[in-house]
Amino acid sequence: MNNPVAVVLAGGEGKRFWPIQTSKSMVHFLGSPLLVHNLKRLKKTGITDVIVVMHPKDKEAFSTLTVPGLSIRTVVQPEPNGMAGAVLVAASLIAGKPCFIMNAEDLVEERLYKELASSLAEDSVVSVGRKVTEYFPGSYFVFDGKRVIGVIEKPGQGNEPSDITGLVFDYFPDSNRYIELLRTTKSDDDDIYEKAFNELLRDGNAKILTYDGYWYPTKYPWHILDIMNELLNTISEFRGKNIEIKSNVVIEGPVHIGDSVKVFENTKIVGPCYIGDNTIIGNNNIIRQSHIGAGCVTGFNTDITRSYIGDNCWFHSNYVGDSVIEGDVSMGSGTVCANLRLDRGEIASIVGENRINTRRTKLGALIGKNVRIGVNTSIMPGVKIGRDSMIGAGLVVDHDIPNDSKKLL
Amino acid sequence: MNNPVAVVLAGGEGKRFWPIQTSKSMVHFLGSPLLVHNLKRLKKTGITDVIVVMHPKDKEAFSTLTVPGLSIRTVVQPEPNGMAGAVLVAASLIAGKPCFIMNAEDLVEERLYKELASSLAEDSVVSVGRKVTEYFPGSYFVFDGKRVIGVIEKPGQGNEPSDITGLVFDYFPDSNRYIELLRTTKSDDDDIYEKAFNELLRDGNAKILTYDGYWYPTKYPWHILDIMNELLNTISEFRGKNIEIKSNVVIEGPVHIGDSVKVFENTKIVGPCYIGDNTIIGNNNIIRQSHIGAGCVTGFNTDITRSYIGDNCWFHSNYVGDSVIEGDVSMGSGTVCANLRLDRGEIASIVGENRINTRRTKLGALIGKNVRIGVNTSIMPGVKIGRDSMIGAGLVVDHDIPNDSKKLL
Amino acid sequence: MNNPVAVVLAGGEGKRFWPIQTSKSMVHFLGSPLLVHNLKRLKKTGITDVIVVMHPKDKEAFSTLTVPGLSIRTVVQPEPNGMAGAVLVAASLIAGKPCFIMNAEDLVEERLYKELASSLAEDSVVSVGRKVTEYFPGSYFVFDGKRVIGVIEKPGQGNEPSDITGLVFDYFPDSNRYIELLRTTKSDDDDIYEKAFNELLRDGNAKILTYDGYWYPTKYPWHILDIMNELLNTISEFRGKNIEIKSNVVIEGPVHIGDSVKVFENTKIVGPCYIGDNTIIGNNNIIRQSHIGAGCVTGFNTDITRSYIGDNCWFHSNYVGDSVIEGDVSMGSGTVCANLRLDRGEIASIVGENRINTRRTKLGALIGKNVRIGVNTSIMPGVKIGRDSMIGAGLVVDHDIPNDSKKLL
Repeated sequence: MNNPVAVVLAGGEGKRFWPIQTSKSMVHFLGSPLLVHNLKRLKKTGITDVIVVMHPKDKEAFSTLTVPGLSIRTVVQPEPNGMAGAVLVAASLIAGKPCFIMNAEDLVEERLYKELASSLAEDSVVSVGRKVTEYFPGSYFVFDGKRVIGVIEKPGQGNEPSDITGLVFDYFPDSNRYIELLRTTKSDDDDIYEKAFNELLRDGNAKILTYDGYWYPTKYPWHILDIMNELLNTISEFRGKNIEIKSNVVIEGPVHIGDSVKVFENTKIVGPCYIGDNTIIGNNNIIRQSHIGAGCVTGFNTDITRSYIGDNCWFHSNYVGDSVIEGDVSMGSGTVCANLRLDRGEIASIVGENRINTRRTKLGALIGKNVRIGVNTSIMPGVKIGRDSMIGAGLVVDHDIPNDSKKLL
Repeated sequence: MNNPVAVVLAGGEGKRFWPIQTSKSMVHFLGSPLLVHNLKRLKKTGITDVIVVMHPKDKEAFSTLTVPGLSIRTVVQPEPNGMAGAVLVAASLIAGKPCFIMNAEDLVEERLYKELASSLAEDSVVSVGRKVTEYFPGSYFVFDGKRVIGVIEKPGQGNEPSDITGLVFDYFPDSNRYIELLRTTKSDDDDIYEKAFNELLRDGNAKILTYDGYWYPTKYPWHILDIMNELLNTISEFRGKNIEIKSNVVIEGPVHIGDSVKVFENTKIVGPCYIGDNTIIGNNNIIRQSHIGAGCVTGFNTDITRSYIGDNCWFHSNYVGDSVIEGDVSMGSGTVCANLRLDRGEIASIVGENRINTRRTKLGALIGKNVRIGVNTSIMPGVKIGRDSMIGAGLVVDHDIPNDSKKLL
Repeated sequence: MNNPVAVVLAGGEGKRFWPIQTSKSMVHFLGSPLLVHNLKRLKKTGITDVIVVMHPKDKEAFSTLTVPGLSIRTVVQPEPNGMAGAVLVAASLIAGKPCFIMNAEDLVEERLYKELASSLAEDSVVSVGRKVTEYFPGSYFVFDGKRVIGVIEKPGQGNEPSDITGLVFDYFPDSNRYIELLRTTKSDDDDIYEKAFNELLRDGNAKILTYDGYWYPTKYPWHILDIMNELLNTISEFRGKNIEIKSNVVIEGPVHIGDSVKVFENTKIVGPCYIGDNTIIGNNNIIRQSHIGAGCVTGFNTDITRSYIGDNCWFHSNYVGDSVIEGDVSMGSGTVCANLRLDRGEIASIVGENRINTRRTKLGALIGKNVRIGVNTSIMPGVKIGRDSMIGAGLVVDHDIPNDSKKLL
């Protein structure tokens, strides 16, 4: 039997991910895109032949994509036509070989990949399920006794055929039949992938591997914080070249300090933390459980706590708590990202036309790229600010700000 | 002659004490209610038999009231019927014994109690007077030569019979006659206590002990700061069990650090200061001449100066100067209690329908229990905020806020 | 030949210098007025006989004016009648002697004075020119070949007779003729000085010394920052008497610390910096490349960067960047002088009826004397605040504030 090929789906659209406009799998953590973190984990399955399906906008970014030990080819998914469409653009590359489909935009534990390693040599379809305790709008497996015989996409609360949902770690020994099914299945909804999969499962020859570790999707922008937390938990103490740590700096727990980083006096860094190359952490700061990209300057007296900061951000006497800042953002002195409701309740966020409960009682701001914010401004919990915007001084920003805004008064 | 019984008046109503709703004598300082501080001082008179007259709401709080060396009984004053009413609810317990009446809500120097010790063995009425240099709305003694022959309540400015006011440290060797007078005296005003006292003084057999030490009443909420200052002056260096003091913490002058307190890096504490049990003083703070209760968290970069903070308060990058915060209060990052008028003038406060000059040029906020304040809000000097309120972000609060308010814009 | 007399022009009006109302030459740097710095430099010419022409309001300030090695006389220019008027009030004192005219309100390098030393013994008129690369509204020399034959005031862009402008360092061996010309020249504009000078230059016997070092005028208030920078560059490490430097203070680069200065814990001072006598630098500050006058208090957690602060200013948790504060100013906690536009553009300032491009991308506030500013207020880049004003709390000040203002809401 041939070695399997992995098809890594990385071309999602991500409308609900706004104001973050970087492709979900291209959000950088610890210096690498999420995609690379996932590819490294994929290696634990033993697969070495990888096809990454990407969004057209990422062509340039993907051109330099390498992971030692993997042979990676990239294909563009020209239209946003779902998972089935994504697999089909890779069809010619997997024809005749077993294939393993996975989503590059979620994060699961490395051990799941290890557990999959033995299954991927088998002759049966293999998929990964996860037990849920409340309704989740995904796909559910259908069982006949212990045998899996189908999968249904978003059955609706109360109509779940089981309490096992699918995570899109799907192995098909016979790619040809699978691709044929993807090509011939018709649907008005975005569920061709599941319908085709359902056909295959009817044979009754599939195996469901149940997984109870963490599983973090990147549906909404605040999900970046969950991914960040897990990846921060993997870092170990690191000190780059040419760093400068001034007097009376306290560093506790595992902290990655990139090349040419400077940390000024009277600052405390509480790990796990990641500080990207060339970043300057100013005097009298506190930085806790956060990810700070490359080329940032935190200025005097800044507090960054449990936050994701991309590259090239400038701060000065700010409090940034439980926030996501994509990159190229500056904040004036005294500006605060509030991260708690006064009533301590769960923080909601408007996504499209829906009010989504983030299930978080602590959530700060979610800010796209290239945003400038004035001094002494207060950004309310869960507020999203679109890219290329300017926000004035002394404001209370209590609702989302679209891309390309000027809100000065 | 029998040993005297002390009747400690602790059941006052305290409308002018708003937004503080703890009974005046139950405001805690250094871990004990003001009442206990006063009872400890009372011991210097040699009295051991004490009756505390309390407000109905304090029944539970008073149930655990003990002071080593004192035999304490409590009685409830069911109605707000003044000092005379308060003494009368204790009447059956003092009948036939000399009695010493004192107010639990004021603070005087310990030496006054010592000086009283010898007088309380005598057969004459003894009271304590205090020389005033300007009109004070209290009771004034009337003298015939050097002999005191009466007392008049609130004579009005210009009508003072002397410059000696009474402080309610009153000793009556014959409780029975005194109680009889309290029972039979009638008045439309709240001055039965003084009218009955006046009757007794007519005998001309009374002694006035003049006292020139400090005397702090707790009429208005800002008076808590005066009491705090005096009690802070009594503390000595103390370090509780299980404390954690991080590096580069400077502690100057006498500071009481309660059990399980943590003080984080780069913080300075300038005594006299009291830090209650389990409180966390964050990084890069300055805490000066203040009282911070138990279970508080001061967060990063907070300045608390000459302020009274009750239990369970949360701060983060705040300036709290010359302020009184009853307890269970949180402030968002960047919120400031301004403590100086721009013109450096004396700060006024509206109490009921009156504009009261606090006589203070430095006075911050006065905040009741269970108040949540957002980020970057500015509270003007002398502003009072009622309990169970929420105050939004980025506001300038320049007038009092009633209990149970939501002021978000 | 007689020794020359210097006529130092220090009596300018300075309307465009608002909100700074100290005479330009009397703005203090490093403990001395700009005038004294210039007189010390003047000594390098060898001149010892000096006449300072002053504004009537400076009579008292000038009464104590001494510079070792110089014989200084002062005369008042009673009316604002320009440079010609200024020289004429000194006419009787310079009659019969060579005279050297210079402006006390500009700053040039010491080496220019040294270079002038040899020229001032000569028999010809000597003046200093400076090559410009774009139009500057000053006086331009007219050349015939290499010989200077005239000077024209503000020729207008495109009409410049040369690219050499005059700096008002002018030497006249024959004062009598020069004064006669000043007396007899008529003009409707403020250019009598230049017209008379032009007459003298017609002789063709003058020498122009070209100078390519720095030249800083004090036309607009932000020019104080340029002067400050140059003078800060001249200071060397100095520690006054009776200073107190607490633990964990970091001082880098040349810093002048005046007598009785205190610097509190966890503060960093990055030179070149000047800290005047009796000033208190509080805890957890950062002070960079700034001039702080005498008797100031910076309070807790203040950041003063590239700013000029006069005497007796009070701060508390402020950010003051690229700002000029004349003196006797206080700022409430959390108040910020923003020093960058959101679009990073050059900052403009309205002067009279003109919008002046300051050519600075970093410029904070420009504040006159005796101004009180509340807490959490944001002052926008380039805003000017007139003396004797009060600015309330929580405001965004985005336009100039006249003298004697009360802006509380």
